[in-house]
Amino acid sequence: MVNVGIIGAGRIGQVHMNSILTRVPNAKIKAVADPFLSEEADKKAKAAGAEYTTKDYKDILADKDIDAVIICSSTDTHSPISIEAIKAGKHVFCEKPIDHDVDKIKEVIKTLEGTGLKYQVGFNRRFDHNFEAAQRAVVNGKIGAPHIIKITSRDPEPPSAEYVKVSGGMFLDMTIHDFDMVRFLAGCDAEEVYVQAANLVDPEIGKAGDVDTAIITLKMENGALAVIDNSRQAVYGYDQRAEVFGSKGMVAIKNDSDSTAVISNEDGVTGEKPQFFFLERYMDAYGKEMVQFIDAIENDTETPLGVEDGLKPVLMGLAAKKSVEEGRPVKISEIEF
Amino acid sequence: MVNVGIIGAGRIGQVHMNSILTRVPNAKIKAVADPFLSEEADKKAKAAGAEYTTKDYKDILADKDIDAVIICSSTDTHSPISIEAIKAGKHVFCEKPIDHDVDKIKEVIKTLEGTGLKYQVGFNRRFDHNFEAAQRAVVNGKIGAPHIIKITSRDPEPPSAEYVKVSGGMFLDMTIHDFDMVRFLAGCDAEEVYVQAANLVDPEIGKAGDVDTAIITLKMENGALAVIDNSRQAVYGYDQRAEVFGSKGMVAIKNDSDSTAVISNEDGVTGEKPQFFFLERYMDAYGKEMVQFIDAIENDTETPLGVEDGLKPVLMGLAAKKSVEEGRPVKISEIEF
Amino acid sequence: MVNVGIIGAGRIGQVHMNSILTRVPNAKIKAVADPFLSEEADKKAKAAGAEYTTKDYKDILADKDIDAVIICSSTDTHSPISIEAIKAGKHVFCEKPIDHDVDKIKEVIKTLEGTGLKYQVGFNRRFDHNFEAAQRAVVNGKIGAPHIIKITSRDPEPPSAEYVKVSGGMFLDMTIHDFDMVRFLAGCDAEEVYVQAANLVDPEIGKAGDVDTAIITLKMENGALAVIDNSRQAVYGYDQRAEVFGSKGMVAIKNDSDSTAVISNEDGVTGEKPQFFFLERYMDAYGKEMVQFIDAIENDTETPLGVEDGLKPVLMGLAAKKSVEEGRPVKISEIEF
Amino acid sequence: MVNVGIIGAGRIGQVHMNSILTRVPNAKIKAVADPFLSEEADKKAKAAGAEYTTKDYKDILADKDIDAVIICSSTDTHSPISIEAIKAGKHVFCEKPIDHDVDKIKEVIKTLEGTGLKYQVGFNRRFDHNFEAAQRAVVNGKIGAPHIIKITSRDPEPPSAEYVKVSGGMFLDMTIHDFDMVRFLAGCDAEEVYVQAANLVDPEIGKAGDVDTAIITLKMENGALAVIDNSRQAVYGYDQRAEVFGSKGMVAIKNDSDSTAVISNEDGVTGEKPQFFFLERYMDAYGKEMVQFIDAIENDTETPLGVEDGLKPVLMGLAAKKSVEEGRPVKISEIEF
Repeated sequence: MVNVGIIGAGRIGQVHMNSILTRVPNAKIKAVADPFLSEEADKKAKAAGAEYTTKDYKDILADKDIDAVIICSSTDTHSPISIEAIKAGKHVFCEKPIDHDVDKIKEVIKTLEGTGLKYQVGFNRRFDHNFEAAQRAVVNGKIGAPHIIKITSRDPEPPSAEYVKVSGGMFLDMTIHDFDMVRFLAGCDAEEVYVQAANLVDPEIGKAGDVDTAIITLKMENGALAVIDNSRQAVYGYDQRAEVFGSKGMVAIKNDSDSTAVISNEDGVTGEKPQFFFLERYMDAYGKEMVQFIDAIENDTETPLGVEDGLKPVLMGLAAKKSVEEGRPVKISEIEF
Repeated sequence: MVNVGIIGAGRIGQVHMNSILTRVPNAKIKAVADPFLSEEADKKAKAAGAEYTTKDYKDILADKDIDAVIICSSTDTHSPISIEAIKAGKHVFCEKPIDHDVDKIKEVIKTLEGTGLKYQVGFNRRFDHNFEAAQRAVVNGKIGAPHIIKITSRDPEPPSAEYVKVSGGMFLDMTIHDFDMVRFLAGCDAEEVYVQAANLVDPEIGKAGDVDTAIITLKMENGALAVIDNSRQAVYGYDQRAEVFGSKGMVAIKNDSDSTAVISNEDGVTGEKPQFFFLERYMDAYGKEMVQFIDAIENDTETPLGVEDGLKPVLMGLAAKKSVEEGRPVKISEIEF
Repeated sequence: MVNVGIIGAGRIGQVHMNSILTRVPNAKIKAVADPFLSEEADKKAKAAGAEYTTKDYKDILADKDIDAVIICSSTDTHSPISIEAIKAGKHVFCEKPIDHDVDKIKEVIKTLEGTGLKYQVGFNRRFDHNFEAAQRAVVNGKIGAPHIIKITSRDPEPPSAEYVKVSGGMFLDMTIHDFDMVRFLAGCDAEEVYVQAANLVDPEIGKAGDVDTAIITLKMENGALAVIDNSRQAVYGYDQRAEVFGSKGMVAIKNDSDSTAVISNEDGVTGEKPQFFFLERYMDAYGKEMVQFIDAIENDTETPLGVEDGLKPVLMGLAAKKSVEEGRPVKISEIEF
Repeated sequence: MVNVGIIGAGRIGQVHMNSILTRVPNAKIKAVADPFLSEEADKKAKAAGAEYTTKDYKDILADKDIDAVIICSSTDTHSPISIEAIKAGKHVFCEKPIDHDVDKIKEVIKTLEGTGLKYQVGFNRRFDHNFEAAQRAVVNGKIGAPHIIKITSRDPEPPSAEYVKVSGGMFLDMTIHDFDMVRFLAGCDAEEVYVQAANLVDPEIGKAGDVDTAIITLKMENGALAVIDNSRQAVYGYDQRAEVFGSKGMVAIKNDSDSTAVISNEDGVTGEKPQFFFLERYMDAYGKEMVQFIDAIENDTETPLGVEDGLKPVLMGLAAKKSVEEGRPVKISEIEF
């Protein structure tokens, strides 16, 4: 039985609480910390079996009975709390991104070295049934050598301009998941990134200095090409598709809907829209990543996504930003130096 | 080169003219007969290369240069003209049904015996790309032994009550195609028919003594079960699907649409309706059946659908009518005696 | 908070335990009874928070703190334990079928009358996302007046001949779910049933006196026609589809698969098979039916499926059996008298 | 009636002959010219009603009775014959590309100016039922303002290295159709092109100095972004899909197959591959473009695709080549000046 402390009890914190309660029998939520703990979150924490809640995450780090922490506090705290937690001897599950600053992620990496502690970063989509199936097809050789990887990733609704200002920009906030997915499906890292981007959805996003529509082309280390298309607003729902095309075939994944019902009438043949909300679409994936994190601790095995997997998509995101600024393809090596 | 005379220059007659002109290089339309030849049909006949048109089909039967006739006159004339044509030494392509009267079809069979002439009946759906693919899957053993054959056949719009009165009823007019399809997909004849039918679409059809909605269950000679569902009105278009389920799998065919375009918006994910009109859906099949008829003449081979194939669906239709009248399953042997 | 006792801790009993634990926060499992309680089930019961387990369900009925029982013991005990439980003042959730004997179900109905206790029968498919969406389309008038209801229901693997002998036969064991679904989608009861059935899957099933393949035609009270096709073995998985066709359109539901992944290669364009196992396909539905049962108790509202809903499909099943025996359509009124 | 001369009687020339014969009643093939006229082509020409065949296309240009020419000779002759034909007072249908040299296309434009003659370039895909439906959805406002246009265009089999050498390279030979399609779907011209390309399919193509796999990103004049992905080899068939995503929704088109048949068995749920060959997929489109060319002559209206529409994709192709050579985004204005 792994004792867990949850740091950050917002939306995602509560998702993880619920996952552990209902799907991870070998873990127990011992404590929940949040400086602005809502009454609802407090109630959920207690219902989930937490022995105590606290405003100060340091209480959790100091708790000798706690084996692992789940960091779902605000993005700017991810890397410092990761470092403190590792120093306190805790295994860490950290929401993405670890940091927008490469040096800070590297500090986490250095701190972790030699400790034997487990570290997992929360790229939940790798645990989604569709993306898993696509990757399995690639790994099993069903499509031969990958030549072209395509990701469509469109949000149902744009964020507020307020949020955009603090988010690190679309590439570090939203596309970062797609960068991880490209690595997952290609089975290797990117070498070069070129972005053609625009502000087509909401002028406020442009005023906040960001883009909301982009085509991102990548050259992968294995020679494959990849392309991501992003929009901050797909009126028909959360659009999350992928395709890997290779020497022996192609695997493609579609969206999930609430049902398979199709109505045929005078207007056409109409099926349901894609599920609208990322929590709805990826709820099962959130559960599965937590199962694997706890299992890695119990069995002393590798986590499925280490801290390096948290670094790489940030490098890709920074290269994407630079590509937009300079209007040219940018090598990952230009970012990493 | 096969010289052809067309008897009946209505809608279907003109379809066959066009097929021969554009798709059957080894046939030539020599003459067209129709007692009420429209100006349009006359023009089409001439454009299709007909040397003459006539009001009297007997002119065609008397024409020594004509090898084959295509009978697309009114249903009640199919069997008598067939008989006359055979006696005149012509190969015959006859639209379905040959007759509603079993004895008259048997007379055609008797007349044909020993003549060496070719006879083909116009069950065009056998030549449709979808139904062909389903049957090929069955014949090639892709689904093992057939256990359940399902046909959905729904017209886009109900016929007029006027038409219903002279049509022989839904089973002989509309379902007759589905009876042929059941035989085609099962690879054998039916033994027993049970119908549950209703008048749900148009009360005028009920007043004309017919039904417009039916579920028809059949027991096939090879032990398989079959079911046809019919409606005289599917508001979304001409609904023509089938499924064969067997010991090793299932083959299913869907409708054709004008394009594969799918629009996703706030209302859902909407594709095109099935093609609305039987001529649109089966135009290619009409061409293919004509190619095969002419080829059978040229190569002296069996036509793909002989006169017996014209008889069997009529027996099934008569059994269906009796089943509705008597509210019980009816054996084909009760009809054929 | 509703205190629940579970009677029968086999496969389905354990599903309900898990549903209550993870999805029904306003219910608590107080005790679990099973004459042959397995070690695994005992462990699960304890993990689910049960205060005690027992071999004798009467312990549960005698427990004053228990408000409701969930009966998932063997079929022959459903009606007697229902009656005892009602007499002991417990709300009852009973797995299907309540009984194969109409009189015994009627006794349950009589016992329940006037008690104010809740009774729910476990036709879980009504809570499946696909079937729910189809029924919602019908209720919301999306397809107009229903004319034809079609259910495809095929099991992935045939039961053993041993099981067949005690199952009550295919119609009471397997088709009973489809009979419920026809009522659900048509929004009314059946008047008449005709079955064409065969033994095509496994000769042992025939020797055990049962059929394994069937086409079942029903006439519904609202004039609609319905048809169910059943097979005990679909090699490609658990085939659970439905279609309601009406005056203004059609709603159709397809199977669920483990992912949307489609592989295109030299062999074709291949998607995943339907989910293979009923627990996998309907796990979510099992959870939802339990939520609604507990909610009905807490809010003193009607359960979504009363004891009458348990009776009607049994009548349909008995009519189906009689139809096979006598080779004719059978009215429900012949069974019910 | 428009009298037509066909210049070039290879594969495409014969397609146009057949289209005119079977689908364009208001055109007549008067003559066919080909320096290496095959016996088969000669026979077809005669069967199509040609009064004469000749080795010298100048005979056709000199023929006073011929109103229009269809140029389907080798690519290097397109622009010179276009110019001669215009000077001879003939309407011109010219296969794509008009030329690889921008200046030569501009000469055609200049020659055409003020003549009142019709000129149509053969981007047949605009007449394909799927692409037409996608464009109609855009034009009719079904998806709002276009934000992202995506084209997937993959050939079933790579060309020989021999062919590659004389083809002008993938962008001018294959992608040129996709460049036209981007213009058609976006409703405007491209401003900038960036290409990430590779040689992944066949090393011989690389040795011949060409690429066989590419991701091409375009910035359109209306602000929309576009992306084309190309491969010279899709083992599953000719992959021709598109998607237009906009402020109010998305329209997507899929491939065509020979039938809708889907087989479900132990291996999965398998539908047919996309049609393999471009003639099969676009045969209907070839017919429709010819109908529109002849109609434009008869009715003295604009052809659907003028000589400017032949120029623009060449500019895009040249920009694409430059982008690969220089590893940077290239503006169309850099090519055109």
